[in-house]
Amino acid sequence: MTKLATADQTQAAVVFARENQGRFVEELKALLRIPSVSTDPEHVGDVRKAAEFVAAELRRIGLENVRLVETSTEEEVIADAAGNARMVPARIGHPLVYGDWLHASGAPTVLCYGHYDVQPAEPLDEWKSPPFEPTERDGNIYARGAVDDKGQMWMHVKALEALMVAGGGTLPVNVRVIVEGEEEVGGEGIAAFVREHGDQLKADVALVSDTEMFAPDLPTLCVGLRGMIYTEIEARGARTDLHSGLFGGAAPNPFVALVQVIAQLKDAEGKILIPGFYDGVATPTDAELKAWKALPFDEEHYRETEVGSVSLTGEAGYSVLERLWARPTLDVHGMPGGFIGAGAKTVIPAKAVAKVSMRLVPDMTPTESFAKYKAYVESLCPKGIVLEVRLIHSGDPIVVSTDNKFVQAATEAMHEVFGKDTVFVRGGGSIPIVGDFVRELKIPTVMMGFGLPDDNLHAPNEKFHLANFYRGIESIIRFFGGVGA
Amino acid sequence: MTKLATADQTQAAVVFARENQGRFVEELKALLRIPSVSTDPEHVGDVRKAAEFVAAELRRIGLENVRLVETSTEEEVIADAAGNARMVPARIGHPLVYGDWLHASGAPTVLCYGHYDVQPAEPLDEWKSPPFEPTERDGNIYARGAVDDKGQMWMHVKALEALMVAGGGTLPVNVRVIVEGEEEVGGEGIAAFVREHGDQLKADVALVSDTEMFAPDLPTLCVGLRGMIYTEIEARGARTDLHSGLFGGAAPNPFVALVQVIAQLKDAEGKILIPGFYDGVATPTDAELKAWKALPFDEEHYRETEVGSVSLTGEAGYSVLERLWARPTLDVHGMPGGFIGAGAKTVIPAKAVAKVSMRLVPDMTPTESFAKYKAYVESLCPKGIVLEVRLIHSGDPIVVSTDNKFVQAATEAMHEVFGKDTVFVRGGGSIPIVGDFVRELKIPTVMMGFGLPDDNLHAPNEKFHLANFYRGIESIIRFFGGVGA
Repeated sequence: MTKLATADQTQAAVVFARENQGRFVEELKALLRIPSVSTDPEHVGDVRKAAEFVAAELRRIGLENVRLVETSTEEEVIADAAGNARMVPARIGHPLVYGDWLHASGAPTVLCYGHYDVQPAEPLDEWKSPPFEPTERDGNIYARGAVDDKGQMWMHVKALEALMVAGGGTLPVNVRVIVEGEEEVGGEGIAAFVREHGDQLKADVALVSDTEMFAPDLPTLCVGLRGMIYTEIEARGARTDLHSGLFGGAAPNPFVALVQVIAQLKDAEGKILIPGFYDGVATPTDAELKAWKALPFDEEHYRETEVGSVSLTGEAGYSVLERLWARPTLDVHGMPGGFIGAGAKTVIPAKAVAKVSMRLVPDMTPTESFAKYKAYVESLCPKGIVLEVRLIHSGDPIVVSTDNKFVQAATEAMHEVFGKDTVFVRGGGSIPIVGDFVRELKIPTVMMGFGLPDDNLHAPNEKFHLANFYRGIESIIRFFGGVGA
Repeated sequence: MTKLATADQTQAAVVFARENQGRFVEELKALLRIPSVSTDPEHVGDVRKAAEFVAAELRRIGLENVRLVETSTEEEVIADAAGNARMVPARIGHPLVYGDWLHASGAPTVLCYGHYDVQPAEPLDEWKSPPFEPTERDGNIYARGAVDDKGQMWMHVKALEALMVAGGGTLPVNVRVIVEGEEEVGGEGIAAFVREHGDQLKADVALVSDTEMFAPDLPTLCVGLRGMIYTEIEARGARTDLHSGLFGGAAPNPFVALVQVIAQLKDAEGKILIPGFYDGVATPTDAELKAWKALPFDEEHYRETEVGSVSLTGEAGYSVLERLWARPTLDVHGMPGGFIGAGAKTVIPAKAVAKVSMRLVPDMTPTESFAKYKAYVESLCPKGIVLEVRLIHSGDPIVVSTDNKFVQAATEAMHEVFGKDTVFVRGGGSIPIVGDFVRELKIPTVMMGFGLPDDNLHAPNEKFHLANFYRGIESIIRFFGGVGA
């Protein structure tokens, strides 16, 4: 296929995509109606249903070798009791969806990655419309997974469909599509697949749309991501739950113990106190820091509109963007155990758990970071308490190269759609698979995302701005065209 | 009625009680089958059913003026969502049960107090037999409420029945019976009733069987109780739940804030750090401390069999019994909020709550203690966080007089049953009504309880040793006889 023909195909695909916007959104809604919550054992069937939905569409638009790839499952019984929290980690494998089209001889191969699983929707009472009944309001589509990542993954599929139709069943590039169902629970399945079957994912570049634009209308490429370790600290004291009147003053209290331990993990300013934790932290380049300073960012506006707290927190001496992108953090997500129901129960619980995660930045490693954390937590073990520190999942921090023709194609594609130069940012969150692509497949990743900072990822009222869904599809069509030209 | 006649009636009642032990236990089982969990709004109907069960029996055995006395109710909507804890305090009024028999002219009046409500049964999976299916094993009856307090309250009722039958429809003393359904949730209803309608409870002494024996076969009177304040600290940070990757390092984390606050409430040894908190603490008399030292108490045995932790905790320089009976404590019972389900959710919750209680000792007061606590907690408020400190319920600490004829009657009654001298102890728990009796009714209370230290109050597998149920009934018959002689 010649350069000119590719340009024609791209243009025809853009026209097709514009004409089919309404249908694309309806299809996305059907996918959003499937509550594919990967962390919840009750939704195992829904997660599979979402996988099959994606596979069926890949087949329909003309991809080949479409199939579900099973991942391994480790199940554990979960006893649940009203008022008293009980939890055990469960490892449930959800299938990968794979498809390819490899007939653009001489052209590069793009590995399109996305995920069809979603975060839990709770707290349900804070949603203005039900999380799994996608609803359009003010030019947005509201639903759990709208932007993270069903909506963005669907842009890839629709861009491929548009090019297929425009090209009479051909694409300007070779394409492999891999869509996972465990991104929100650590992505062990795809990590294992990349490690063990990297040959089946052979490509020149990966395309990931699971990030956001820095500001509305500002085309953005994400070139760095924090990694993470997600852990649990379990504290056990007495053999059974005890009455705090009868035993208070003699029996160890696991919650008090956890409080005493966690309070020593981070100081009031947000500095992490784990010995050696910052050893691997790489300082961003002067050029990066200068570029971040030039970004349109108003700290007070951010505090007011995006966080909504009385003030921001974090390490002294670093800007907000540095704290979010280039500094590790430590957060507590929940403390199951004891009595959490309405009213008062005077129990000293036999055990309590804290869910603690740390975000990592280049060049920290999950293995070393967890080892330092675990050793330090264990060294803080209060009297009368037995501590167990567990790693639930982890992901590497990464910085991707911007010095390649794929990044060039992406910035050009977005310039055509947005009429603006692309800004290069990092992300505070983790997309562990990008690290796997670098390490196992030795390929760069283009992180071209179209979410907005206020899209409520992982929170009630998640949304995707429909204009960005359409611009995303067009940008991706043009990116494929550019890569294949 | 003459002294001789009273002795005959007492003896006949003891014989009757022995002959009817089997029936008494079956009746108790029927009461234990009613899940009268006063803290749980779902069990409102069951709580009332238990009240009606008690009232019916008081009527049947010949008490007069038997009625339910309604208490005030304040309800709040409780939104519950799987995985994410949500709780609001609810004030649900449960009825008092009242009955009397006031025809023993010239004899003292005994006010019999008990409670028919129980603690929640969770965690359910740790019960060997279901909590509301009373089961006999090894001479014990296992069920939620077996010893606290249905079984002990039933001893009063059965002692009265035995005396009534033996006396041909008369008692050797005047009796008022008041049984509440809110003891496990702070007892606001009965406190208000005592305050506002004390004339209806006019008596010379109160009899409370809601405590335990210091050791098996060792008759025990409890002469002091700790008070308490049960509180919640709510920490609010961001406006909505946020993604810890995108916002970690800038957004305040309510759990980290609670951890930072609570870690400053108590040091590693168990010393409470609230300024002025120990100001009102009265040191026990030398005689008391000497008597406590003489009690059969093996710290290592206690640690191993009753607590089961690797070591005991608490303030340096005080014995275990001093720490349990004469020193204030601070415990955390649960920390609702955030993500407590299986798996990992990377949320920075908008808010989190800690349920924190403090046990108080004479001469501390709940009002002053809460004020000091609240001011101190608020002074610790971390950056970016808004704290709210709420008092859920409270009770006064008390020491009761041992220098009266009722205590004499109790020790003599138990000597006849156990063949041993009574020991005087204190209790670590709270029975707020005893303070109300002292303050409002100006009467002493005899706390004659028959539980055992390993009866699993407020924990799974609560039990009551049946031999003590029988000995308790006989002791109470003899106590009434002694008071009326």
